[in-house]
Amino acid sequence: MTLREKYGEWGIILGATEGVGKAFAEKIASEGMSVVLVGRREEKLHELGKEISAKYGVDHKVIRADFSQSGCTDQIFAETKDLDMGFMSYVACFHTFGKLQDTPWEKHEQMVNVNVITFLKCFYHYLGIFAKQDRGAIINVSSLTGISSSPYNAQYGAGKSYILKLTEAVACECAKTNVDVEVITLGTTLTPSLLSNL
Amino acid sequence: MTLREKYGEWGIILGATEGVGKAFAEKIASEGMSVVLVGRREEKLHELGKEISAKYGVDHKVIRADFSQSGCTDQIFAETKDLDMGFMSYVACFHTFGKLQDTPWEKHEQMVNVNVITFLKCFYHYLGIFAKQDRGAIINVSSLTGISSSPYNAQYGAGKSYILKLTEAVACECAKTNVDVEVITLGTTLTPSLLSNL
Repeated sequence: MTLREKYGEWGIILGATEGVGKAFAEKIASEGMSVVLVGRREEKLHELGKEISAKYGVDHKVIRADFSQSGCTDQIFAETKDLDMGFMSYVACFHTFGKLQDTPWEKHEQMVNVNVITFLKCFYHYLGIFAKQDRGAIINVSSLTGISSSPYNAQYGAGKSYILKLTEAVACECAKTNVDVEVITLGTTLTPSLLSNL
Repeated sequence: MTLREKYGEWGIILGATEGVGKAFAEKIASEGMSVVLVGRREEKLHELGKEISAKYGVDHKVIRADFSQSGCTDQIFAETKDLDMGFMSYVACFHTFGKLQDTPWEKHEQMVNVNVITFLKCFYHYLGIFAKQDRGAIINVSSLTGISSSPYNAQYGAGKSYILKLTEAVACECAKTNVDVEVITLGTTLTPSLLSNL
């Protein structure tokens, strides 16, 4: 059974432009699912969507969204409301380095929006749809910093911990249903985002 | 050396009305610190403040605030800006029981405000003051649900995990300073709040 047969026609990747998000998009497309690619860099997403459609023969849709703006989900939900959704992955993340009190408040606000608020809104929204249809899968992306804590990158680790513990709990709540929920805790992963920090 | 001599004149307890918050207020008052008592139930806070002032001979101040309203910190910070602050404890928390998707969004919003956003704002604000004066102490309250995750109370556990990992990281960042930061992970604790849930 392919992922499309098991979970449905469309999957959404929040933070799809490159790295882990792009890998998820390719994986579900390779199993027949059409992909909603969401991120800030619209042009790169269109390129990726075209590549994926050409390679796997699936449909794609691009939504431009800045996850650091807490209102960004309205458009995402509106643009997917008529699709048969069956997969979601929240990959987006945002960090800054420095002591907590030395980081400007507006950066903290952006981080908490990306790592907590927008994540919570997306998880709640698509989980609600999947639970109602008793079909779907969710893979959220946490990090080892969510387990260890992350000095000089404190809010990032705290947000990743929020994602980890929320998803673990919901996975348990969904245990006897046909909605599959899991969270992955990535360690150092060679992605364009990591390489740009070196 | 008393806590007042070590940390300063005033301490603020966010969520001071009863239980753990009240215990913190009494403890620092017993070591000579005046207390800023913050919570929703103004009348109970005034009673507590009077009791504490009578018993320990310290000053007190009451601020009414609903931590589920993200703008609530403006008044708190304004009312403490001329005080010599040396202690903060964020005790407030809020939970609801049920599956994540079955809990109305407005409850989730209240929870994430109490357990994440208002916490972050208060921690950032007072940490900034303490770091600048290189003097002060912060004790934040997490929970074992922040370690285990908490099915059917998922967002609460996630918020408590956020508090735990953020505070752990900041404690490390403050290690070689005169600002003492710690987080406690409470298990089942007999408080009026717990008893009201039985």
